[in-house]
Amino acid sequence: DFDYALENDVKPAFGLAEEQMDRLLSGGLICWGSHVTEILEKGDLFARETVNPDCRGFVRVLLAGARNTGKTFLAAKIAKNSDFPFIKVCSPEDMVGYSENAKCMALRKVFDDAYRSPLSCIIIDNIERLLDYSPIGPRYSNLVLQALLVLLGKIPPENRRLLVLATTSNEHFLREVDLLNSFSNTMHVPRLNSVEQIMTVVDETSSFTDSERHHLRMKLQKNEKLTVGIKRLLELVDFAKQGQENYRVQLLADSLEELSMDIDIQN
Amino acid sequence: DFDYALENDVKPAFGLAEEQMDRLLSGGLICWGSHVTEILEKGDLFARETVNPDCRGFVRVLLAGARNTGKTFLAAKIAKNSDFPFIKVCSPEDMVGYSENAKCMALRKVFDDAYRSPLSCIIIDNIERLLDYSPIGPRYSNLVLQALLVLLGKIPPENRRLLVLATTSNEHFLREVDLLNSFSNTMHVPRLNSVEQIMTVVDETSSFTDSERHHLRMKLQKNEKLTVGIKRLLELVDFAKQGQENYRVQLLADSLEELSMDIDIQN
Amino acid sequence: DFDYALENDVKPAFGLAEEQMDRLLSGGLICWGSHVTEILEKGDLFARETVNPDCRGFVRVLLAGARNTGKTFLAAKIAKNSDFPFIKVCSPEDMVGYSENAKCMALRKVFDDAYRSPLSCIIIDNIERLLDYSPIGPRYSNLVLQALLVLLGKIPPENRRLLVLATTSNEHFLREVDLLNSFSNTMHVPRLNSVEQIMTVVDETSSFTDSERHHLRMKLQKNEKLTVGIKRLLELVDFAKQGQENYRVQLLADSLEELSMDIDIQN
Amino acid sequence: DFDYALENDVKPAFGLAEEQMDRLLSGGLICWGSHVTEILEKGDLFARETVNPDCRGFVRVLLAGARNTGKTFLAAKIAKNSDFPFIKVCSPEDMVGYSENAKCMALRKVFDDAYRSPLSCIIIDNIERLLDYSPIGPRYSNLVLQALLVLLGKIPPENRRLLVLATTSNEHFLREVDLLNSFSNTMHVPRLNSVEQIMTVVDETSSFTDSERHHLRMKLQKNEKLTVGIKRLLELVDFAKQGQENYRVQLLADSLEELSMDIDIQN
Amino acid sequence: DFDYALENDVKPAFGLAEEQMDRLLSGGLICWGSHVTEILEKGDLFARETVNPDCRGFVRVLLAGARNTGKTFLAAKIAKNSDFPFIKVCSPEDMVGYSENAKCMALRKVFDDAYRSPLSCIIIDNIERLLDYSPIGPRYSNLVLQALLVLLGKIPPENRRLLVLATTSNEHFLREVDLLNSFSNTMHVPRLNSVEQIMTVVDETSSFTDSERHHLRMKLQKNEKLTVGIKRLLELVDFAKQGQENYRVQLLADSLEELSMDIDIQN
Amino acid sequence: DFDYALENDVKPAFGLAEEQMDRLLSGGLICWGSHVTEILEKGDLFARETVNPDCRGFVRVLLAGARNTGKTFLAAKIAKNSDFPFIKVCSPEDMVGYSENAKCMALRKVFDDAYRSPLSCIIIDNIERLLDYSPIGPRYSNLVLQALLVLLGKIPPENRRLLVLATTSNEHFLREVDLLNSFSNTMHVPRLNSVEQIMTVVDETSSFTDSERHHLRMKLQKNEKLTVGIKRLLELVDFAKQGQENYRVQLLADSLEELSMDIDIQN
Ligand SMILES: Nc1ncnc2c1ncn2[C@@H]1O[C@H](COP(=O)(O)OP(=O)(O)OP(=O)(O)O)[C@@H](O)[C@H]1O
Ligand SMILES: Nc1ncnc2c1ncn2[C@@H]1O[C@H](COP(=O)(O)OP(=O)(O)OP(=O)(O)O)[C@@H](O)[C@H]1O
Ligand SMILES: Nc1ncnc2c1ncn2[C@@H]1O[C@H](COP(=O)(O)OP(=O)(O)OP(=O)(O)O)[C@@H](O)[C@H]1O
Ligand SMILES: Nc1ncnc2c1ncn2[C@@H]1O[C@H](COP(=O)(O)OP(=O)(O)OP(=O)(O)O)[C@@H](O)[C@H]1O
Ligand SMILES: Nc1ncnc2c1ncn2[C@@H]1O[C@H](COP(=O)(O)OP(=O)(O)OP(=O)(O)O)[C@@H](O)[C@H]1O
Ligand SMILES: Nc1ncnc2c1ncn2[C@@H]1O[C@H](COP(=O)(O)OP(=O)(O)OP(=O)(O)O)[C@@H](O)[C@H]1O
Ligand SMILES: [Mg+2]
Ligand SMILES: [Mg+2]
Ligand SMILES: [Mg+2]
Ligand SMILES: [Mg+2]
Ligand SMILES: [Mg+2]
Ligand SMILES: [Mg+2]
Repeated sequence: DFDYALENDVKPAFGLAEEQMDRLLSGGLICWGSHVTEILEKGDLFARETVNPDCRGFVRVLLAGARNTGKTFLAAKIAKNSDFPFIKVCSPEDMVGYSENAKCMALRKVFDDAYRSPLSCIIIDNIERLLDYSPIGPRYSNLVLQALLVLLGKIPPENRRLLVLATTSNEHFLREVDLLNSFSNTMHVPRLNSVEQIMTVVDETSSFTDSERHHLRMKLQKNEKLTVGIKRLLELVDFAKQGQENYRVQLLADSLEELSMDIDIQN
Repeated sequence: DFDYALENDVKPAFGLAEEQMDRLLSGGLICWGSHVTEILEKGDLFARETVNPDCRGFVRVLLAGARNTGKTFLAAKIAKNSDFPFIKVCSPEDMVGYSENAKCMALRKVFDDAYRSPLSCIIIDNIERLLDYSPIGPRYSNLVLQALLVLLGKIPPENRRLLVLATTSNEHFLREVDLLNSFSNTMHVPRLNSVEQIMTVVDETSSFTDSERHHLRMKLQKNEKLTVGIKRLLELVDFAKQGQENYRVQLLADSLEELSMDIDIQN
Repeated sequence: DFDYALENDVKPAFGLAEEQMDRLLSGGLICWGSHVTEILEKGDLFARETVNPDCRGFVRVLLAGARNTGKTFLAAKIAKNSDFPFIKVCSPEDMVGYSENAKCMALRKVFDDAYRSPLSCIIIDNIERLLDYSPIGPRYSNLVLQALLVLLGKIPPENRRLLVLATTSNEHFLREVDLLNSFSNTMHVPRLNSVEQIMTVVDETSSFTDSERHHLRMKLQKNEKLTVGIKRLLELVDFAKQGQENYRVQLLADSLEELSMDIDIQN
Repeated sequence: DFDYALENDVKPAFGLAEEQMDRLLSGGLICWGSHVTEILEKGDLFARETVNPDCRGFVRVLLAGARNTGKTFLAAKIAKNSDFPFIKVCSPEDMVGYSENAKCMALRKVFDDAYRSPLSCIIIDNIERLLDYSPIGPRYSNLVLQALLVLLGKIPPENRRLLVLATTSNEHFLREVDLLNSFSNTMHVPRLNSVEQIMTVVDETSSFTDSERHHLRMKLQKNEKLTVGIKRLLELVDFAKQGQENYRVQLLADSLEELSMDIDIQN
Repeated sequence: DFDYALENDVKPAFGLAEEQMDRLLSGGLICWGSHVTEILEKGDLFARETVNPDCRGFVRVLLAGARNTGKTFLAAKIAKNSDFPFIKVCSPEDMVGYSENAKCMALRKVFDDAYRSPLSCIIIDNIERLLDYSPIGPRYSNLVLQALLVLLGKIPPENRRLLVLATTSNEHFLREVDLLNSFSNTMHVPRLNSVEQIMTVVDETSSFTDSERHHLRMKLQKNEKLTVGIKRLLELVDFAKQGQENYRVQLLADSLEELSMDIDIQN
Repeated sequence: DFDYALENDVKPAFGLAEEQMDRLLSGGLICWGSHVTEILEKGDLFARETVNPDCRGFVRVLLAGARNTGKTFLAAKIAKNSDFPFIKVCSPEDMVGYSENAKCMALRKVFDDAYRSPLSCIIIDNIERLLDYSPIGPRYSNLVLQALLVLLGKIPPENRRLLVLATTSNEHFLREVDLLNSFSNTMHVPRLNSVEQIMTVVDETSSFTDSERHHLRMKLQKNEKLTVGIKRLLELVDFAKQGQENYRVQLLADSLEELSMDIDIQN
């Protein structure tokens, strides 16, 4: 029996939610552009809609954006800001090696748990990973997909209010399998794509001297197609810092250029 | 043995029908256009045909329409209006994690149960979800499909009368797998697609002041391609209500415009 | 062991043949056109060929036609007319939820049973359903297909004579999988496609007043592409009868027109 | 262990070879054209090559031709004429419901048994059926295919001589899966395609009066594309015989014409 | 546990290597052209490279050529000539009915066994058969493929030297799955394609009189596209020998012509 | 339970890391071009980044290049140079015959083990082999892919630092399945493609006399498209050494030319 299995066989090793949230948010927010602020503001409205007794209280928001753009960070931030009593992160990281069935059960359990509390927030991180999606084939777990479609379509029990925050780096796939229509709203998380935005992040990391930063800006301004996700940018800065004094700026600029070209080709 | 399994292993956790019906119909009907009335009227005729001793008494109706258009609501309304002694909702919501086989058994059981009563109505909600349909692949449960094809094609036992109301948001798929031909009739549930219709709903929700509504109508009239399902519209109104005073109309109008463009592209 | 399983594990719940035949033939024959007569006459010749000691005594006939054209009815009629001592209906209706293997066994059992009697008739109804055929994929049970190909190709034991009557609504598929060549003859069951034929059926059902019938004929004559299967026509008549007095003819004419257009598009 | 299973689990219910051969050859040979004679003569040479101590003694012959052309009959005739002490028919008819694995084992057993005798002949009937081939997909048992490829490629043990006679109605498929190259020779079995050939068969069956035969010849000569397999022709004659006196010739001519057109379209 | 299974469950029934080698080489070498000599000479160099302490001692050679060209014969010849203390033939013939897993284990065992001896030679015969390759689908055992890719890529233990000789009739497939790059060298085994080469073989078999041979040469010289594998040629000679005196040359010439045309079309 | 299985059922037979590293590095580095030096230098920076307390300490580098270009060698060299206390090689060689699941568990265990040490380096060799990738189909283990995607995306526990060095000969495939984006950096390992580079290697092996080397250089200079991986080149040298005195240069030159042409065609 399915319910039995759910109770007894699978005890998802979800870390304590708070700890997990802290890890996701470690390092502190960098507001590298207006998009960041807007997303967080809209996040506030969604939280309020969930709470508002005049509303249906079942709000499902998707954060969609390319790889490494800080989607998970922003989802966690919104959840944190909501101050809801029950917050749960449902992430593929905790399900390596789970069978399709076990994933469905875990998902169902997260929703069931949420409905025990009057006001809850669920983060479903990296939704295409949860679906084991791979573009070659293509392959994905139809079982998990169907479970999600149903769970996101099922009205909560009376007096239960739920905010679902999901992230994905493959909106296109979600549209094709009709998952997009199961969300009441979608927000797009962009890459950085101006020298100004990049320099904001570089400055915040305090990794370079003034002269290096001046130098860097000069170099970057020559390239018109710079684009990079916040997560990747922070890693490139880490790498470049290891270079020898006169070489560091060069390393960062080259990496950024190479990466931007690569992204440009992919699109 | 199949029959044994049916009796013993699988006891679908269908909620009490009445409760379920009430939940589906919560909020009360909004007659946003003539389509709504026509569908309900035809629904009456189907109920009468089922009862009429001069007729064969096996009526199978499909409500087809895009996502979020209120199909489930209308099916429930027709069933309620019929006042049949036995009403059962067969919904994917109650089958998360079921195997294909278990779904077949559950379906068969619903029909068997119905045939215990002389006059019954079955709602088969979201038929493509029951079939685990996903357009990528494409994938679906052929087992469940074949079961449905046979169950919808099999004459009821003597003196048994049955009205089947099914809903789908993928009529195209049902046509391709030849399920359409198993229904004796199809009714189409449309999206709202005029400012008038949208304002009817907005007015009914009493969420905006008169001046806001005037403002909103002005804004909407500039867009010629507005289209939105009733369910989604009610959600957008909920969201917009959270905005600050001078911002609420803007939020709703923007959401509607974005959504309409999105739908336009998909088609 | 296969034979063991056949004897012990699977006892197909085939209804008593006679009862089943009566249900299939309930309502009585309507001769809506010359095709009906011809098919029944040829059916007689096939029965005679099966009996005739100068012939090989293994006759396999396919009734092919669109959905809802009365194929099953005609097959049952021919079988009944043959007056053979052993008649068995092998229908997907009795196999909901069977595994492919169980279907093969059931099929084999039907043939084995038939060969216990010197003179037998088997109706294999809805052959593409037995094969779990669905055009999307496409999918079908190759196991059942191969079993059928072999069973229809295997000479009966000495002094055994067998008439096989099969029905299908997908001749094209049967041709592609080379099943057509396993039948010694194919008969085509058409839809009704003249006002005359439709009116013959309407008249037989005694559902409309003379004035309504006159009215109906006028209306139908305006449409040149009317086409409908007998089974669907009888259902539409049932539906139309529920309408209010001045509305009934309209309802039937509209339904017929809509349906005909739909069929026209599909082809 | 495979060998164990082979000995203990699967005891293919092959009928006694002689009985089976008689059934396949019942009715007696009709020499409707030179092709028949040539095939039988070449068959003699193959038998001699198998026996001849100066030759390798492993001869593998394929009889390829359309459905219903008498392939199985001719293979059985050649085997009978060879007068080899060990003759075995390996036919899909005896394997309905076998798993792929069981088929492989059965095949291997037939070869192993043959190698117990110094001089053997194996008939592998309907090779594409043994492979569960269906063009839609396409589907077939790769396991059985690989087993056949290896068994037909493996040199017999010392002092063992084997003649393999296989039949197929899908030479194209066998070529594609590289089975053709595993045979040392291929013979083609044609359909009848002249009035003369057809009349030879009709005459042999003594089913029509002289006047009917004259009449028939006249009718057939008007059609230039007549083509029919011997097996189907004999069945059509059986059917036509049931017609009323003045109708029999018509029935046969019409059937032949229809069939020929159908074949023509398929090619 | 995998290793356990390898030790206990599967004991591949490999014949004694020597016996097997003799059977593969029965009949004696016919040097029908310079290709044969070159291949054998290069084979010598590979054996020496394997032995040479200045070399890495892991030599992997592929013999690629069409069906029936004598690949297995040549691989066996090279192995025999090498005089290595450990020679093992790994052939699909010994694995009929093995599961993919059992094949992988058997392969691994062959390599493990080889590494017990300081100097070994493994023949992997008919590599695409080992992979259960069939072009329709296409199908093949990815499990076996991956095992081969890894085994051919793994450096032998210290002081172990190994020569791998593999044969294939589908080089194209091996290239596509990147197996070609796992061999350190490839040699191509051609068909015979001149009258001179064919006559050399015919002469060696001493099957025809001088006058017949003269006659044959005349006949063959008229055809410009003659091409045949040595194995098939020897079989055709066997067949032709059965013909009556004045017919034998004709039979051989016709068979060769037919075959050559067939090959020509396939390419 | 998954964790349980991980602890108890699967004990990957990873050799002692040091031994394994020595075997991978046996023979000593040949610096045949500037690419080799650059890759090793960048490798140093990555090691430093991993250690640096100001950095995130989770560095994932991919070495991508054609077959036989020395990728594994370079990855091992970088790991060795890093002098990290924990180094583990995760290679398909140790997983022949593992199920997909066992591979996932092994992978997870490698990461778990690494996280027990504060500073670790993992080599994931031949990543497409770990994924059982084959281009025909295409086929690959989606289970392993998803595990890798998650493991490479999951932030290490606090105070744990990890350098991942992966190799692949199919960067294109990794890009398509979005694995590329999981690495913080990619380095490309090229083939040799100038006479100078080839001669550097030939000289280092001391296999040819001065005159032979002069001769060789002359021969090679005539060919403009020479290209060969270091691993393959060393094997060809081994082979050529076996030739007779005046033949050795010819053998090497011919092999190189043939190989280069083959590579040229493939691209
Ligand atoms: N706006 C931000 N301000 C500061 N740090 C950020 C911000 N966004 C992301 N980061 C940093 O980047 C890290 C990774 O970002 P995150 O995991 O949210 O990206 P992602 O888009 O979810 O990546 P993926 O596509 O791999 O899922 C975070 O742990 C955080 O340290
Ligand atoms: N005509 C209506 N009047 C009032 N409320 C409605 C109407 N139609 C739908 N609703 C509201 O919208 C909600 C959802 O609609 P419903 O579930 O019927 O849409 P649906 O088309 O079935 O959606 P889905 O495509 O997700 O299955 C209902 O619970 C109800 O509150
Ligand atoms: N010629 C007829 N005369 C009278 N009634 C008929 C005739 N043909 C069909 N019917 C009626 O229609 C009903 C259904 O027809 P039937 O099941 O034979 O159609 P079918 O073509 O087999 O349909 P399907 O495509 O669904 O298998 C019958 O039960 C019978 O009541
Ligand atoms: N040359 C012949 N002379 C007389 N009768 C024949 C001849 N060939 C076939 N028949 C008759 O036709 C029957 C069926 O032929 P057979 O089974 O050999 O055809 P087939 O080509 O193998 O058919 P399939 O394509 O279904 O396998 C035989 O049992 C025999 O009675
Ligand atoms: N060069 C040769 N000299 C003499 N006989 C040969 C020669 N080559 C092959 N043969 C004969 O042909 C027989 C079959 O050849 P072999 O099995 O090597 O061909 P193959 O190319 O491996 O065939 P396949 O494509 O079926 O694997 C051998 O057993 C041997 O008797
Ligand atoms: N730069 C080098 N200097 C010296 N020897 C090398 C060098 N690179 C590779 N080799 C030699 O080549 C052998 C094989 O190279 P390696 O396994 O690294 O190649 P690879 O690119 O990983 O091959 P594959 O594509 O099969 O995985 C090494 O064991 C080593 O002996
Ligand atoms: Mg993320
Ligand atoms: Mg619904
Ligand atoms: Mg029917
Ligand atoms: Mg046959
Ligand atoms: Mg061979
Ligand atoms: Mg490598």
